[in-house]
Amino acid sequence: MSGRLRIIGLGPGPASWLTPEAGEALAEASDILGYAPYVARHKASSHQRLHPSDNRVEAERAAHALQLAASGHDVALVSGGDPGVFAMAAALVEALEALPLEARDIDISILPGVTAVLAAAARLGAPLGGDFCVMSLSDNLKPWKVIKNRLDAANAGDFVLALYNPASKARPRQIFEAFDILRAGRAPATPVAFARAIGRDDERILRCSLADADPAEADMSTLVLIGASHSRWVARPHGEPFLLTPRAVQVRP
Amino acid sequence: MSGRLRIIGLGPGPASWLTPEAGEALAEASDILGYAPYVARHKASSHQRLHPSDNRVEAERAAHALQLAASGHDVALVSGGDPGVFAMAAALVEALEALPLEARDIDISILPGVTAVLAAAARLGAPLGGDFCVMSLSDNLKPWKVIKNRLDAANAGDFVLALYNPASKARPRQIFEAFDILRAGRAPATPVAFARAIGRDDERILRCSLADADPAEADMSTLVLIGASHSRWVARPHGEPFLLTPRAVQVRP
Repeated sequence: MSGRLRIIGLGPGPASWLTPEAGEALAEASDILGYAPYVARHKASSHQRLHPSDNRVEAERAAHALQLAASGHDVALVSGGDPGVFAMAAALVEALEALPLEARDIDISILPGVTAVLAAAARLGAPLGGDFCVMSLSDNLKPWKVIKNRLDAANAGDFVLALYNPASKARPRQIFEAFDILRAGRAPATPVAFARAIGRDDERILRCSLADADPAEADMSTLVLIGASHSRWVARPHGEPFLLTPRAVQVRP
Repeated sequence: MSGRLRIIGLGPGPASWLTPEAGEALAEASDILGYAPYVARHKASSHQRLHPSDNRVEAERAAHALQLAASGHDVALVSGGDPGVFAMAAALVEALEALPLEARDIDISILPGVTAVLAAAARLGAPLGGDFCVMSLSDNLKPWKVIKNRLDAANAGDFVLALYNPASKARPRQIFEAFDILRAGRAPATPVAFARAIGRDDERILRCSLADADPAEADMSTLVLIGASHSRWVARPHGEPFLLTPRAVQVRP
């Protein structure tokens, strides 16, 4: 008997950003697995078993989810934001690949969600009006050399840049190195925003320039946005300015 | 008397991917503006005025939305996907910037949505397991030279690449030029997917390699995904393989 496995994006936090598809899948599941704070967002009914786990055990969690689904359970594997963006989808497909082909016959689907960069952009105005790069600054799974090369490439392409996982207690210095690279390739007045915990009660946005940005503002709940060469602030009579990356790009002569 | 303006992401199509926040804002609005096919998705109630418009009139539509909100209407300006990603948020903030400062005192908020690349990634498996770039291939508002430079930079950074607006009747050739650039910088076996109309009745996904990809498969409803150097297909006993970009990156010696 085979069950099914759905990898679910919960969005940035509030129920108003949870898709109906994700909400229904959560309600139907027999077993809910995920990083403990994400599992805790769900009010479980009495028939549901919750399997909260720690931050660093994605591979084990994915293997467990596959095992439960293979033995007939209706499994929800939850991620914050979207499951495809620095979340559980990749860990799950890696765990699937580790199985022999005949053992991969499990009903798996992935339910998209609103990822952090979209929520941060919505609060800020229109920072993603042009082409953009999305990067994780964590070097847990890729060498710093690769990250450095990608930051250089993002500068060379004049992309708007969104940084996930900019810093943690174990990795406090990399965001400083990243800003050194960004400052070497972009103008001092380039707009920067530190968007923390968007959609949650402790939401906070810090707006500044690349010259003035203090990388120490970033933590694991922060999405850092760096503008392209033509990104700019648009003042309003009341409230914070909007961040705009205009759709039109002029080539500098 | 001032109204308000909400710029709403409808997601890729189905109601199951529309956030509750977006659904409520749509139901409350007195006036709904947008590209005609997006406005047509909404079942209007009798008190609502619909203002469908053409594809190429974003600036005029944005100015109209601001004008209606300034005169007291409760305005919903709708986009497919997420309003911040190649959609109406930038056009709206540009139109706001064109007003004198004192005329910008309008209650504006942006409601995020599921953008096409997330929906396509969910159908494919985990193509965005690594860092990625999101680009529009349209040169209506930026020179081809800028697009070419960005494709080169995406190659140099070995980013997974998502292409929006890859081709239209007026721009049939650029996706061919883009593939020439991608083939010059990536291995022939690099996985490629053409994800068309994801979430809609005519959804269709074509999986191939960079060597075999036929750029003529792309149209305005297609999201083109190109893998990084370590992206690969993961076979399943039944159904299509998953596309995986593993989280771990090894540096080639």
